Amino acid sequence: MDIGQRSLEKHYEWRGKLEITPRLHVAGREELSLAYTPGVAQPCLAIAADPSQSFALTRRHNLVAVITDGSAVLGLGDIGPEAGMPVMEGKCVLFKEFAGVDAFPLCLKTHDVDELVRAIYLLSGSFGGINLEDIAAPRCFEVERRLKALCDIPVFHDDQHGTAVVVAAALINAFKLVGKRMEEAVCVINGAGSAGIAIARHLLLMGVGELILCDIDGVLNPADPHINQAQREICQLTNRRGVQGKLADALRGADVFVGVSAPNVVSPEMVASMARDAIVLAMANPTPEINPALALKSGAKVVGTGRSDFDNQINNVLAFPGIFRGALDVRARDINDAMKTAASQAIASLVSEEELRPGYILPQAFDRRVGPTVARAVAQAAIDSGVARIPVLP
Amino acid sequence: MDIGQRSLEKHYEWRGKLEITPRLHVAGREELSLAYTPGVAQPCLAIAADPSQSFALTRRHNLVAVITDGSAVLGLGDIGPEAGMPVMEGKCVLFKEFAGVDAFPLCLKTHDVDELVRAIYLLSGSFGGINLEDIAAPRCFEVERRLKALCDIPVFHDDQHGTAVVVAAALINAFKLVGKRMEEAVCVINGAGSAGIAIARHLLLMGVGELILCDIDGVLNPADPHINQAQREICQLTNRRGVQGKLADALRGADVFVGVSAPNVVSPEMVASMARDAIVLAMANPTPEINPALALKSGAKVVGTGRSDFDNQINNVLAFPGIFRGALDVRARDINDAMKTAASQAIASLVSEEELRPGYILPQAFDRRVGPTVARAVAQAAIDSGVARIPVLP
Repeated sequence: MDIGQRSLEKHYEWRGKLEITPRLHVAGREELSLAYTPGVAQPCLAIAADPSQSFALTRRHNLVAVITDGSAVLGLGDIGPEAGMPVMEGKCVLFKEFAGVDAFPLCLKTHDVDELVRAIYLLSGSFGGINLEDIAAPRCFEVERRLKALCDIPVFHDDQHGTAVVVAAALINAFKLVGKRMEEAVCVINGAGSAGIAIARHLLLMGVGELILCDIDGVLNPADPHINQAQREICQLTNRRGVQGKLADALRGADVFVGVSAPNVVSPEMVASMARDAIVLAMANPTPEINPALALKSGAKVVGTGRSDFDNQINNVLAFPGIFRGALDVRARDINDAMKTAASQAIASLVSEEELRPGYILPQAFDRRVGPTVARAVAQAAIDSGVARIPVLP
Repeated sequence: MDIGQRSLEKHYEWRGKLEITPRLHVAGREELSLAYTPGVAQPCLAIAADPSQSFALTRRHNLVAVITDGSAVLGLGDIGPEAGMPVMEGKCVLFKEFAGVDAFPLCLKTHDVDELVRAIYLLSGSFGGINLEDIAAPRCFEVERRLKALCDIPVFHDDQHGTAVVVAAALINAFKLVGKRMEEAVCVINGAGSAGIAIARHLLLMGVGELILCDIDGVLNPADPHINQAQREICQLTNRRGVQGKLADALRGADVFVGVSAPNVVSPEMVASMARDAIVLAMANPTPEINPALALKSGAKVVGTGRSDFDNQINNVLAFPGIFRGALDVRARDINDAMKTAASQAIASLVSEEELRPGYILPQAFDRRVGPTVARAVAQAAIDSGVARIPVLP
């Protein structure tokens, strides 16, 4: 029986992957009057007098909303809010499992940017952070940008930034291995959706030498009337040599390929045309842009994919639990670039120089050191960059 | 140390009264690929093909949102959404404790009816039911009415209907005790806010003989330009004899007083002016409309309050957990009048004729029979009234 069918049966058995558990028992009148009326009036009044007390007196300090509109769920596209829920519940399980974060899934029945922003803002007082998930591009950019401006808690679109953080971690270690410097490398990203653009932004931030962004028609062209605002913006910051043509043209002589696109769009010839010791992160799911064995045979030195059954899995679970743990621990108002960069470096640091090899550039998804290590680095970066409301490491 | 101060200290200790608990462990790759990608695509697709499968494949079947705008929290008034959260968390604890319902608290940062309705509707696909809580009148009426029309899951404003259900249960047994029939009784309700109006509607539905609704100015007058739409409507259905004047005038000769108003507004003389064997439910919190001992001394036969330290506590916890349990069990589209009436009768039925006495007309808040008994009656009523999507009792 294939994994999908087994998963379906397991889901019927689980009947939901989460439940809400009281942290106290209300066994009698005494507990009832402490946890509920009449005693509960006192913590209510304490928060009314000082709203920041909501972090101390309710679960807010440990609580993240995982919110989708169901418009870009996995590779399945727009399947609707209810149908996105199994993914959201799964994500919440991982938050708790890997970082002790209480995460609650919410699916919103609208694709309208104004409505999404307003509804999520109205909810934001109930949470310590907001993880946006599986919202289609380009809508996701505006939803996130506006919410970050409105909310005083972190807002983080994981499909963008989680992916970017882990890709950057992989590249930090891959560059060490092939003896190249990020600042001198030419990197080609295929796929100009939310993940591709976020990866481009994050790598620019981390100082990558040259970036070329491609989509299904080839190198992204700022004069193309069909590209969206986010794509137009990233064009201003990339492709400084003005390369034109198809993906194959962009890849010629490149040091890195990063794919968040479609199955089998990279040929062995294309990999062979790259610079020596090329790095190939082929993350199309479930079928990568090129089969890893084929990429290695064609001259790539390091190959990663999105899959757990190949070496070097680029898995967001390395990033989002620890990032939110760190942000919550110091009650950060935001998850900013400094915190994301710190997360990439923390993930990369967990592979020692002795362990580092082409088949092992990232810690395993189940390495229990990852969550706490990322959390600590992110919390420190929040403090250093001035967005922490608790200015000491927990 | 008083109960409020002790509660505050407990809340600092608890750091939130709820947490989110995974129902499975993701200990390795196999579990990850079943609970999350790639396997999870299959349950997503099953729900996309048939949205009703969201009740079988996610936690929705057992999940209720407890939602407030923080505008009428306990007796504290409009203290804001964050400050309402300790009450909402407490309510969610009771849902799980008394009926196994997973309930999640949400506080919305708006008092605008359109915004509340829209935001809650947008969320409704994530839940199996919606419990509105501590929303000020008259806004709460419109919010509930519009949401009931929009949503295909039950929407229930507990401050209205939970209270009404328990008051009716108390009266069923009190009437037995004093040997009067509900159909012949004259009942005076003091307080024309959300609870008062809901109690009036529910008692009319259950066939009470005559109802007079009062507020702070005395008997509610449909010609008064200051009354709201909900009050105007209830005026059409009550006070058929056209009594005028103050509360004292209304109470003369009445069989029942129901107070959801203010401390000490009922005098011993007013109770003495009521019919023989009067029933007094003085639910102002924490100080009742009249002290129970004083009411009994003045001629009342049965006295109840909202407090746990007096006899006959009128406590919503007797109603809401079982009502939602029953509605969820048969996947009801609504919580309708038939279901509320069934809940009142079920609660009343738990005091046997042998046990029934003036100091014991309702089961105790911690009587573990209440939740399941109410659930069963409500589920059957949902089936009988055609709002159940699962047409058999669980």
